[in-house]
Amino acid sequence: MIKAGVLGATGYAGIETVRLLARHPGCELTMVVSQTFKGQKISDVYQSLRGVCDLVCEELSVEEAARRCDVVFTALPHGASKEVIPALYGAGLRVIDLSGDFRYNDVKVYEKWYGQPHSAPELLKESVYGLCELHRDEIKRTRLVGNPGCYTTCSILAMAPLVKNGLIDNSSIIIDAKSGVSGAGRGLALDYHFCECTENMKAYKLATHRHTSEIEQELSLLAGEEIVLSFSPHLVPMKRGIFATCYANLREYRSAAELLGLYREFYGGEYFVRVYDEGELPESNHVAGSNFADIGLVVDKRLNRVIVVAAIDNLVKGAAGQAVQNMNLMFGLDEKTGLEQPGLYL
Amino acid sequence: MIKAGVLGATGYAGIETVRLLARHPGCELTMVVSQTFKGQKISDVYQSLRGVCDLVCEELSVEEAARRCDVVFTALPHGASKEVIPALYGAGLRVIDLSGDFRYNDVKVYEKWYGQPHSAPELLKESVYGLCELHRDEIKRTRLVGNPGCYTTCSILAMAPLVKNGLIDNSSIIIDAKSGVSGAGRGLALDYHFCECTENMKAYKLATHRHTSEIEQELSLLAGEEIVLSFSPHLVPMKRGIFATCYANLREYRSAAELLGLYREFYGGEYFVRVYDEGELPESNHVAGSNFADIGLVVDKRLNRVIVVAAIDNLVKGAAGQAVQNMNLMFGLDEKTGLEQPGLYL
Amino acid sequence: MIKAGVLGATGYAGIETVRLLARHPGCELTMVVSQTFKGQKISDVYQSLRGVCDLVCEELSVEEAARRCDVVFTALPHGASKEVIPALYGAGLRVIDLSGDFRYNDVKVYEKWYGQPHSAPELLKESVYGLCELHRDEIKRTRLVGNPGCYTTCSILAMAPLVKNGLIDNSSIIIDAKSGVSGAGRGLALDYHFCECTENMKAYKLATHRHTSEIEQELSLLAGEEIVLSFSPHLVPMKRGIFATCYANLREYRSAAELLGLYREFYGGEYFVRVYDEGELPESNHVAGSNFADIGLVVDKRLNRVIVVAAIDNLVKGAAGQAVQNMNLMFGLDEKTGLEQPGLYL
Amino acid sequence: MIKAGVLGATGYAGIETVRLLARHPGCELTMVVSQTFKGQKISDVYQSLRGVCDLVCEELSVEEAARRCDVVFTALPHGASKEVIPALYGAGLRVIDLSGDFRYNDVKVYEKWYGQPHSAPELLKESVYGLCELHRDEIKRTRLVGNPGCYTTCSILAMAPLVKNGLIDNSSIIIDAKSGVSGAGRGLALDYHFCECTENMKAYKLATHRHTSEIEQELSLLAGEEIVLSFSPHLVPMKRGIFATCYANLREYRSAAELLGLYREFYGGEYFVRVYDEGELPESNHVAGSNFADIGLVVDKRLNRVIVVAAIDNLVKGAAGQAVQNMNLMFGLDEKTGLEQPGLYL
Repeated sequence: MIKAGVLGATGYAGIETVRLLARHPGCELTMVVSQTFKGQKISDVYQSLRGVCDLVCEELSVEEAARRCDVVFTALPHGASKEVIPALYGAGLRVIDLSGDFRYNDVKVYEKWYGQPHSAPELLKESVYGLCELHRDEIKRTRLVGNPGCYTTCSILAMAPLVKNGLIDNSSIIIDAKSGVSGAGRGLALDYHFCECTENMKAYKLATHRHTSEIEQELSLLAGEEIVLSFSPHLVPMKRGIFATCYANLREYRSAAELLGLYREFYGGEYFVRVYDEGELPESNHVAGSNFADIGLVVDKRLNRVIVVAAIDNLVKGAAGQAVQNMNLMFGLDEKTGLEQPGLYL
Repeated sequence: MIKAGVLGATGYAGIETVRLLARHPGCELTMVVSQTFKGQKISDVYQSLRGVCDLVCEELSVEEAARRCDVVFTALPHGASKEVIPALYGAGLRVIDLSGDFRYNDVKVYEKWYGQPHSAPELLKESVYGLCELHRDEIKRTRLVGNPGCYTTCSILAMAPLVKNGLIDNSSIIIDAKSGVSGAGRGLALDYHFCECTENMKAYKLATHRHTSEIEQELSLLAGEEIVLSFSPHLVPMKRGIFATCYANLREYRSAAELLGLYREFYGGEYFVRVYDEGELPESNHVAGSNFADIGLVVDKRLNRVIVVAAIDNLVKGAAGQAVQNMNLMFGLDEKTGLEQPGLYL
Repeated sequence: MIKAGVLGATGYAGIETVRLLARHPGCELTMVVSQTFKGQKISDVYQSLRGVCDLVCEELSVEEAARRCDVVFTALPHGASKEVIPALYGAGLRVIDLSGDFRYNDVKVYEKWYGQPHSAPELLKESVYGLCELHRDEIKRTRLVGNPGCYTTCSILAMAPLVKNGLIDNSSIIIDAKSGVSGAGRGLALDYHFCECTENMKAYKLATHRHTSEIEQELSLLAGEEIVLSFSPHLVPMKRGIFATCYANLREYRSAAELLGLYREFYGGEYFVRVYDEGELPESNHVAGSNFADIGLVVDKRLNRVIVVAAIDNLVKGAAGQAVQNMNLMFGLDEKTGLEQPGLYL
Repeated sequence: MIKAGVLGATGYAGIETVRLLARHPGCELTMVVSQTFKGQKISDVYQSLRGVCDLVCEELSVEEAARRCDVVFTALPHGASKEVIPALYGAGLRVIDLSGDFRYNDVKVYEKWYGQPHSAPELLKESVYGLCELHRDEIKRTRLVGNPGCYTTCSILAMAPLVKNGLIDNSSIIIDAKSGVSGAGRGLALDYHFCECTENMKAYKLATHRHTSEIEQELSLLAGEEIVLSFSPHLVPMKRGIFATCYANLREYRSAAELLGLYREFYGGEYFVRVYDEGELPESNHVAGSNFADIGLVVDKRLNRVIVVAAIDNLVKGAAGQAVQNMNLMFGLDEKTGLEQPGLYL
């Protein structure tokens, strides 16, 4: 039985990790850490957990974590993770970090897009980018995973087969992405006040969102050349979901059927990636509440342009679910353990 | 391994049953029946199930059901169940019926509120009202369960301890209930068209809703006298959830603490009923996606009136979850099997 | 041309007042006051107003207000209004206060329910309760209106004809009220964070909400005896709307048709009160965006109980619209001026 | 006083036209036609109109229309308009058609994208494309307006200044558009059933939506060369709103400030087009309920790509509001008459 702790347990990514671990058959949740709610039961903070997980929130103690856990999930604000993780890692723990701090191969890219120096650049070399379908073998061998962002997981899975197979003009990639509001977390801000947010939609951080750099890193790796692309995040009035509409010019004409065949080949053995048939496209409620990533595509013959549509649940495959999938890999469990529930649809 | 079939599998109650059974550790789903979608994979009708349950929808055949199933869940429109169930029951199957057809002790009450003759009155005598917390022993012994309605489960659980203990003026009961839209099912109607429904709320069938009679039957049984009450259903713009605000005049003054103590006593061993502390009240997202029924209360000292607030997920504890709980009881499994996941909260 | 100022212009009630006054044919908006946004254009705070009203927010100056306005609307937090209003009133201005501070006939009731001493009890004697349909003549003669609350406007209009005509047992009144989220204002709080609020509903302040006292004051006046009643507020996931379901035991049996006849008589000449025919009930989108109050009712024969259903838009008839209606009365304009637009429905 | 009739008055575009005309100071609504609801008051179909517009729905009679109207708005399903309009036009009426039937300069384009022969090709020559900001002078002179689609109005206004000034590579245009659900009309379909639609988003008709041809026609006219572009419609869970995110490669680098300057020049005198400052972008609730079209943009320096963001209310500027704006132009009224209300924001 793996013993796990969750730091930042009362944020949205944290509590989703708690929800998944609370019923995970191969893992015991032994510690939930929350500075804000220390001393309170986690089920008083999220009453859905009453009777299911009534652990009391604690302050962080690295010694306690080392004593009571095999692995810790750090669901802390960006920038906070990197202060804590060296100590946890140094104490011999496995660490799965849900922030942006350990997702980069090149510290300069991090520092450019996050606008601050990285406080543990030596650990960055140890860390593995936890997109399970692309880095499975390295994840199995590491003690430190940088768990991917929600937009990035969806976007990279959507484009990887095209880029890897050299089918598109890499300078033509545009990712128009839409997110549910839970991606913004539990912190209060006018933008996420119900009345400002429901029945409204908007674009934000066009051409400047940090996830751009993560997508570029991974697609460049697959392409074997540097890719620069457009990434446009939008907020839509729903709780969960990332929906990415991705455009690229085909180097030469391919039919949708051909391309879907390549996708099926690329993702052949993957349980969590579902490639749709021609004429069908994912919707966000096909994946909500599950760890699946659904992908479909259309070819616009008039323009020789491919449009790939992908959907994930931002809190599951885009955060907590993928984190658990990473844990399963790191501990030699079946990758699907604790993650097999289908989405709710309704 | 119990072998189960679901009839009417592509309606909302049906598909929720499929969702729960697809991951139930003690049950194998062997048959999904849908007249409308026969020949299609259920995962083409609800794409959330792709890769999780890809059974093909069949037409109903009682022989096939008897051959391949131990139990069938009938999630058919009211009135349709009673045509099919005698044959299924006659073939030796256990039957859990999600319609209103087998919920009544007195066929006259059914015929009055449903406005049609009952076609299998003799079976009505065999059937047990499947509110697990109140009829557990009978459920264990029957082959035919009338699975309770969503409004009724919530309302009865909310009022049972007060009525049973004779604490209130039984003529003063008012249940003001609010439902999410999935309670109306998947059938198309203008009332459930997105633009007519979102950002809107309304009352409907005031003083005439069929669930009134079900609530009255069960509370009368508990009281040992006939209870007539007001039941007012409302539609609110959310997918899941029943929320009941119940009013009654106390015979003599009791504090909230005293009453909550009685509730805890009444529901002492029940896993799925969660009684709140004084000062706390359930909300619908505390239970959404789970089989829990959450209950809290307030006493209005000025009026010596108790206000009980209860919440369930209409599709889980109010339909498919309770049906699975009934199956577990009927087959001697731990009642919680396959139902332990907490709500999603988000 | 009436010259008007709005204090607290950037809260939800304030901005709704600005929206209505910006197109009011008999009124010129000359001053918008906002401490938080002073120096910014109001159309930079609410971009819907770009090109329609681009006034710059100012700090409050009583002298300026007196110089540039005939009337001020104070849409300040409860408790803040009463500090400012004596000065404005003293400067000769007409004042329409949207807070709870000037709604009471008896300062003791205010102090009991608001838990603080009233700083201008002498002004309370001057002020008129601005429920136009009930206090029209006094409103025309006063310089200080306490504009009613949203829940209260809806509840009082729903029950007034029954109480006035002595048809019900006044000790049996229960008002189960549901509100859209904008009633909570623009201030940030976890309860109104989109993800905590959408797809969720809850009850709050049961038996203790301040609006109870306002409803009791007005219904007691109509009844000629003191009425104590149950008032239960709920939050439902929509932006606008108050929906009240009101219960009372009839002294003697009356049909719905009889009662509706009495309602039509009571509200005969009222443009903004719409009484529904038997068999029809209001819904919140019938009034959203408009100043109408819609009322329907059902009689439960089995219990000799009447159930009155009423709906208003909390920001219009429940706040800014009624405030403008009060202004029209105070200045001798046609009461409907600037308020004639129907609701949006969609 | 213009006398106006609305055909198809009970669909969403029709009822929005009725709502706007009911309070239009220069127009009297004299006839509402609805096959489905003939004989019923329009305020029984849309109860928001009670007391505001209680006209009785009639069957279509061209003679009656000619006798009682100066202008008719035809809000009929695509394909139905062209059967009726020749008779109305022949009777001397002015006609503003909200369907797609009279939006094309070239009948072949219509027949290709709508998949049916056009039954009144000779009238197509008379008709003017009613995008007021681009075709004002022709609109003033015609008796037949093809009122633009919702997606198209938003997309064309967003791209017109760039295309007209030759600043972009016309083969690189991608319009990723998002629509509220009311764009799909009042007809029942599973896609618009509340539970399938709320908390969900999806793409549809990628690379094949009819509005593509309308956008291409107008942008080609402005460019002086044939433009072929990608247009991707999406459904998002809100009632009103079109939100377009438009991408194009700049021929040579221009700053956002420069481009915004050109937009302000292009739309200098336009009341209904609001160009945002650098750093600000439209959101759908800035325009909801109003006739405004809001536009902002960002330049992605790394890719020399411009991203234009535009928002309109699909039922107002995207349908009924623009139709009224066209009527105002055709009858020599101030273009803004009856359309000056700001959006609701909330």
